[in-house]
Amino acid sequence: MEKRDPAWRVDPDRIRTDWETLATFVDPSRPGHTRRAFSPQDRAARRWVARRMEEAGLAVTVDAAGNVWGLRPGTRDGPKLVTGSHTDTVDGGGRFDGIAGVLAALEVARVLDEAGVRLRLPLAVVDFVAEEPSPFGLSCVGSRAVSGHLAVEHLSLRDDAGRTLGEAIAQLGGDPARLASARLGPDDVAAFVELHVEQGPYLERAGARVGVVTGIVGIDRYDVEILGERGHSGTLPMSDRHDAAVAAARLVLDLMAEAARHPGAVVCTAGRWQVAPGAYNVVPGEARVGVEWRALDPTVSDAMEEALALALRALEGQGYRAEARRVSREAPVPLSPAVQDILLAAARDLGHDAPRLASWAGHDTVQMAHVTERVGMLFVPSRGGLSHSPEEWSEIADVAEGARCLAQAIVRLDGSLA
Amino acid sequence: MEKRDPAWRVDPDRIRTDWETLATFVDPSRPGHTRRAFSPQDRAARRWVARRMEEAGLAVTVDAAGNVWGLRPGTRDGPKLVTGSHTDTVDGGGRFDGIAGVLAALEVARVLDEAGVRLRLPLAVVDFVAEEPSPFGLSCVGSRAVSGHLAVEHLSLRDDAGRTLGEAIAQLGGDPARLASARLGPDDVAAFVELHVEQGPYLERAGARVGVVTGIVGIDRYDVEILGERGHSGTLPMSDRHDAAVAAARLVLDLMAEAARHPGAVVCTAGRWQVAPGAYNVVPGEARVGVEWRALDPTVSDAMEEALALALRALEGQGYRAEARRVSREAPVPLSPAVQDILLAAARDLGHDAPRLASWAGHDTVQMAHVTERVGMLFVPSRGGLSHSPEEWSEIADVAEGARCLAQAIVRLDGSLA
Repeated sequence: MEKRDPAWRVDPDRIRTDWETLATFVDPSRPGHTRRAFSPQDRAARRWVARRMEEAGLAVTVDAAGNVWGLRPGTRDGPKLVTGSHTDTVDGGGRFDGIAGVLAALEVARVLDEAGVRLRLPLAVVDFVAEEPSPFGLSCVGSRAVSGHLAVEHLSLRDDAGRTLGEAIAQLGGDPARLASARLGPDDVAAFVELHVEQGPYLERAGARVGVVTGIVGIDRYDVEILGERGHSGTLPMSDRHDAAVAAARLVLDLMAEAARHPGAVVCTAGRWQVAPGAYNVVPGEARVGVEWRALDPTVSDAMEEALALALRALEGQGYRAEARRVSREAPVPLSPAVQDILLAAARDLGHDAPRLASWAGHDTVQMAHVTERVGMLFVPSRGGLSHSPEEWSEIADVAEGARCLAQAIVRLDGSLA
Repeated sequence: MEKRDPAWRVDPDRIRTDWETLATFVDPSRPGHTRRAFSPQDRAARRWVARRMEEAGLAVTVDAAGNVWGLRPGTRDGPKLVTGSHTDTVDGGGRFDGIAGVLAALEVARVLDEAGVRLRLPLAVVDFVAEEPSPFGLSCVGSRAVSGHLAVEHLSLRDDAGRTLGEAIAQLGGDPARLASARLGPDDVAAFVELHVEQGPYLERAGARVGVVTGIVGIDRYDVEILGERGHSGTLPMSDRHDAAVAAARLVLDLMAEAARHPGAVVCTAGRWQVAPGAYNVVPGEARVGVEWRALDPTVSDAMEEALALALRALEGQGYRAEARRVSREAPVPLSPAVQDILLAAARDLGHDAPRLASWAGHDTVQMAHVTERVGMLFVPSRGGLSHSPEEWSEIADVAEGARCLAQAIVRLDGSLA
């Protein structure tokens, strides 16, 4: 019953036209291509997505969280094959990111129809609400609702204008009072596949037009606080000093050295620095550094944590008070090996030797992994690896090639799961 | 004609009473013992100092910069022997610092009278204006006027309340329109000796009650700016990064390593850090670090400068843009070997094997070195080396012992210079 048609009539011009239209829904008062979740531009863009779904023959619904769904019936009822992503952007963002995944999903629905393909399973295209950090301080709002990880208390969060998240969801056509109705389970979703731009340089360097994601890295964040001894920058001898900034520098370089022991398996960043009191002539008594590392392999993450603990103990041994408070921990999400194999096979059907690679950023797929274990991701290349920037760029031809692989994968999934 | 009397009747109780009284002129709204220059408390304290000078038989004048002078005539006119320091404090300061030097100088005038000593040279006791960084952003205001390094333009500097420095000087009884009249030269000053608390731990550790200063360290300050490449903390591979914070950490540790190659000869501080944009999930693209080093030996200072240049070149070689802008350079001030010898001999007369040591902080003596080459400093111990802090402490008995050495040194200077 598996259908293979490497000749899917994916139309790059149609994708480009959609992409150009969607790129017009931006906040003119913000830099780059800004369409933040719950903004007037976001609402208008989502209405446009819904219209394009209808034009593609999909039955459109907006769930209680405001997610836009477009349904294509199967030959029988049951769990759906779901594909999609999100169309909101960060402030000062670009025109691809999750947008590529929504437009590719839409194109898949169209080409399946145009090719006369009847799937046994229903197919749903989704545009999730607020994948990027929203004005309410929460990301993946829509997919959290679907996975059951959006709590009723979250609806009371307020943005800077005093609006609640519940009110903002209602403005999208959602129904916050019936939030639980948005939740889906394995009986609703047979598999979820998200196409997204890579946001990194691996595919471009590999000369690949599509890649299959092995998993989404875990993210650990800590606030490190080091208390040394404040003193006069002249009269306090070097041998007596407990310079908190020097200690922070050592600790950060220790972490970087540990990261270098796991090449390609971890990234580590110390992005937030506060050194007090902050004068030329005062030996710093306090330093606070916000650190983050990301790894797919939990043993690598554990090694980073051990390196942090060692660095803290070393500083304690030198007379500092040094401690790290965990700010957040997101576990890595390995993606289904079975779905990976189907995505690889689909790409191979179309002549692509798609590399496997990790996703170093979070995605709606993280939430969807709570709904079904059958989750997968396809990446298309990002020029220069740039992301969350007005310079973010992917070739429409690559997005179209990703859509072809996605169509082929949907057919293969239908064959293997139905 | 040299007079030696190791039995100078220095009265610690009299010094203590003066010290206790002066310590009452503090701003109750500020922490510690705060008497900032040009504050109402500073004005009241300076009036009290003038009264105590008069009670000690000195002829009091206030010069055009507001410095309080108390003159004791010699058996003939001519250049004066000058001793004194300052009574203003930093915000949240202590009760000793320059105060010890003013009170010791006052006590010297009294004990010389009580011992019936006639000096050939006139003796002047001085309480300089605003040695500490003033609300006008300038330090050593009074001694700068005396050395000719207070420019007329400085008088237009304004404090947060909008008052000009000229107005503030007038409130002290100065005459800013006649600023140049405060300037003194070698025909006015035969020698200048300042007693001050050490502000460091050397004398306490050496078990010494008095020390002779060899020189005042030079101070170099730089703003280092490092431009790397901002990026996504997940998707930007470690091997591609130009993390400006990591570069700053390396540069600072390079400077600290160079300082460690000159033990006891340099102190180095990186007290000001700015890392941008300052998020957990963004690789820092910019780092700014304010660094300072202090050394008495110019070759050591040159070695630090070379280390900075090397570190910057290393970063440039790694693809960063890195540069250092000199914020300020104060040359080291070696103190007169002849005056050092007299101070050492005076201390020895009184049974003290006074160590020689550098001053790691600036003093009014730096300005007075422009007036006469015959400048010297005596240090008394600071408990725990603490300075510019409410916990700053020196024993009154040590201040009294310093005053005895100062009296003896004045007599020796009078003998050698008159």
